[in-house]
Amino acid sequence: MPKISKKGQLMPESPIRKLVPFAEKAIKNGKHIYHLNIGQPDIKTPEVALKAVKENDVEILSYSRSEGSETYRNKLANYYGQHNIKITNQDIVVTTGASEAIAFIFGSIMDVDDEVIICEPFYANYIAFATSASVKVVPIVSNIDDNFALPAIEEFEKLITPKTKAIMICNPGNPTGCLYSEKEIKQLADIVKRHDLFLISDEVYREFTYDGDSHYSILELEDLDEHTIMIDSVSKRYSMCGARVGCLVTRNETVRHTVLKFAQARLSPPTYAQIASEAALGTPQSYFEDVKNKYINRRNTLIEELHKIEGVRVSTPKGAFYCIAELPVKDSDHFAQWLLEHFDVDNETVMVAPASGFYSSAGLGKNQIRIAYVLNRRSLVKAVNIIKQALKVYNN
Amino acid sequence: MPKISKKGQLMPESPIRKLVPFAEKAIKNGKHIYHLNIGQPDIKTPEVALKAVKENDVEILSYSRSEGSETYRNKLANYYGQHNIKITNQDIVVTTGASEAIAFIFGSIMDVDDEVIICEPFYANYIAFATSASVKVVPIVSNIDDNFALPAIEEFEKLITPKTKAIMICNPGNPTGCLYSEKEIKQLADIVKRHDLFLISDEVYREFTYDGDSHYSILELEDLDEHTIMIDSVSKRYSMCGARVGCLVTRNETVRHTVLKFAQARLSPPTYAQIASEAALGTPQSYFEDVKNKYINRRNTLIEELHKIEGVRVSTPKGAFYCIAELPVKDSDHFAQWLLEHFDVDNETVMVAPASGFYSSAGLGKNQIRIAYVLNRRSLVKAVNIIKQALKVYNN
Ligand SMILES: Cc1ncc(COP(=O)(O)O)c(C=O)c1O
Ligand SMILES: Cc1ncc(COP(=O)(O)O)c(C=O)c1O
Repeated sequence: MPKISKKGQLMPESPIRKLVPFAEKAIKNGKHIYHLNIGQPDIKTPEVALKAVKENDVEILSYSRSEGSETYRNKLANYYGQHNIKITNQDIVVTTGASEAIAFIFGSIMDVDDEVIICEPFYANYIAFATSASVKVVPIVSNIDDNFALPAIEEFEKLITPKTKAIMICNPGNPTGCLYSEKEIKQLADIVKRHDLFLISDEVYREFTYDGDSHYSILELEDLDEHTIMIDSVSKRYSMCGARVGCLVTRNETVRHTVLKFAQARLSPPTYAQIASEAALGTPQSYFEDVKNKYINRRNTLIEELHKIEGVRVSTPKGAFYCIAELPVKDSDHFAQWLLEHFDVDNETVMVAPASGFYSSAGLGKNQIRIAYVLNRRSLVKAVNIIKQALKVYNN
Repeated sequence: MPKISKKGQLMPESPIRKLVPFAEKAIKNGKHIYHLNIGQPDIKTPEVALKAVKENDVEILSYSRSEGSETYRNKLANYYGQHNIKITNQDIVVTTGASEAIAFIFGSIMDVDDEVIICEPFYANYIAFATSASVKVVPIVSNIDDNFALPAIEEFEKLITPKTKAIMICNPGNPTGCLYSEKEIKQLADIVKRHDLFLISDEVYREFTYDGDSHYSILELEDLDEHTIMIDSVSKRYSMCGARVGCLVTRNETVRHTVLKFAQARLSPPTYAQIASEAALGTPQSYFEDVKNKYINRRNTLIEELHKIEGVRVSTPKGAFYCIAELPVKDSDHFAQWLLEHFDVDNETVMVAPASGFYSSAGLGKNQIRIAYVLNRRSLVKAVNIIKQALKVYNN
């Protein structure tokens, strides 16, 4: 029997997937599960987007341009203009989700064994895309104690080798909810310039910032056009995860030209989804205000409730819709599974994402979980109460 | 300025892309172009598929399962059952086009510098996916003289090394129109078994077979379940290229499990497109008969017209909707560009795909072009006449 690749063996399993069979069994046994484990919002997709697809007049569902449809890119450039990012449609390559943008970037700027420095905990799939491209993620630890702020620049310096090609950030952060300040971004600008590296910023949560803080994009940096590559997506912004439309934006023409070769190989991003995404750009501002208010309230409720549990520490998310909580347990993988297998309150339990999957340094995050606050407040209160009760039982 | 990767530099440009600027200029200058260069059919997408999307009742456009929606996979398994392929929904991983299936397979079964043997001329993007995965395509030449039949098995044997992981075929073939017989497929079965290799078959044109020949899938082979991986797509079958839905089918559980890790990393295939693809399975048989008749007539017209040109040789396609024609020119890249830049008949000219891009052996295919017969017969007659006139002028 022919063998699969070493790469295929190394590909990580999603930290949540391992729990799925236990969740399915729990559901089969009649338990209700509060899903705090996934970044799939319960928010409705904007009506304008849904409507555009329902009223589409496509007769031949053709390939679009590999770089994305002309009209969509034009409007997208305009959207960025309104967010203080001055680019043209030429700077955009539309991708099949931010996911594909990550894959294209890794392929375009890194060869086998090259390195990319990323603050951990990070979005777990970065490791998968790195493995797939045979490149190495070099983690730099950020800490719950200071709300997962950017590590000191000296710490980055220490990790730079001749193989380092890029520093990659996620801002606002999944799973941390961190939001980097303009000052922090400028520190990164300085270091990538000095070491001639790329700066990649995953900004798929750019709209989700709270407490009056505003988002500072790497594309707002001056004199760094050859270094900066921004990743974006409609998935979270418009609660349109199933569209599979994202993009990458860079003013570096050589990078774009290279990315485009990857894009041409896969022909085009999905057509219906581009129709939806283009229409979504017309979403009224009130939609975002509603959504943001919802998330702020949920976050506040969640943090408040978590603070009530003895032995639990939690960072305060400034953006996105996740937070990392430290629990009084030794092994959150085990605890998360146990919650599904052996615990319930009135036949209800909770599914959380063990945080170890968001770290690549062995042993880190073992007592942490990631909570996505994508449920309404009543559910969040109930879910946290279940965790509270569970910890009492679990620790006895 | 930070540098792009060597891999990025090596990524091939599509053989057609190079001509696009010249085509755009010609159009700007008021010329009409007959596009014989791309595999984008002019056939209407089945009404059932379009309707399902228009009438969808999605409110939250969520991620689907990474392996594709349950209902779609169920119905797809049933479709294959009707085509003499006995599989279950478990054997299917839905992908974002056949394109993504190719990428997942290369990643799952090959490591850096591993080799896959492919008959050339082949679908040009195979090289791009191989480059992207840092693996090597080892070409084996098939010939216009015998209608691009499968090369002798001894020729394959000669190319097998310890690095060889798979033999890959495209059946029916793009760009050749070849259709492998059951006998030829069984020869391949024998060799992959003896050398413990995978057999990958790209069957995206499975419906497009002519002259009463029927398609024999590698999944019909017995006792080869651990070796065979089939690639498929809705793009051509339903003229739904812009959907971006394909799949890979294998009974090898380890491969599937590995592919699934790649699939999970990119979260899910597009949701609207899966709705369209599921509905498309209900396309009435009459649609396919109509389409097939159209292509047979077009093919016959095309071949007949090409035979009228002195010095032109052409294979007779048995499937798909492409053919390779040998022209009395030294450099078809130059000729193709010249057609766009310097030639017209009554302000009309033709865009063809130079065949060299479909070969990886240097120097091969220089006097060949690929013609896609995706236009109506009247246009085909006109287009071939333009080529005829052009050759007279070009060769003087
Ligand atoms: C930080 C981050 N980047 C990228 C993605 C992938 O997004 P997409 O759905 O656009 O592929 C996600 C999805 O959860 C994410 O959280
Ligand atoms: C032989 C072959 N394989 C794969 C593909 C890619 O198809 P998809 O649109 O499903 O990605 C094509 C497209 O032209 C093709 O001709």
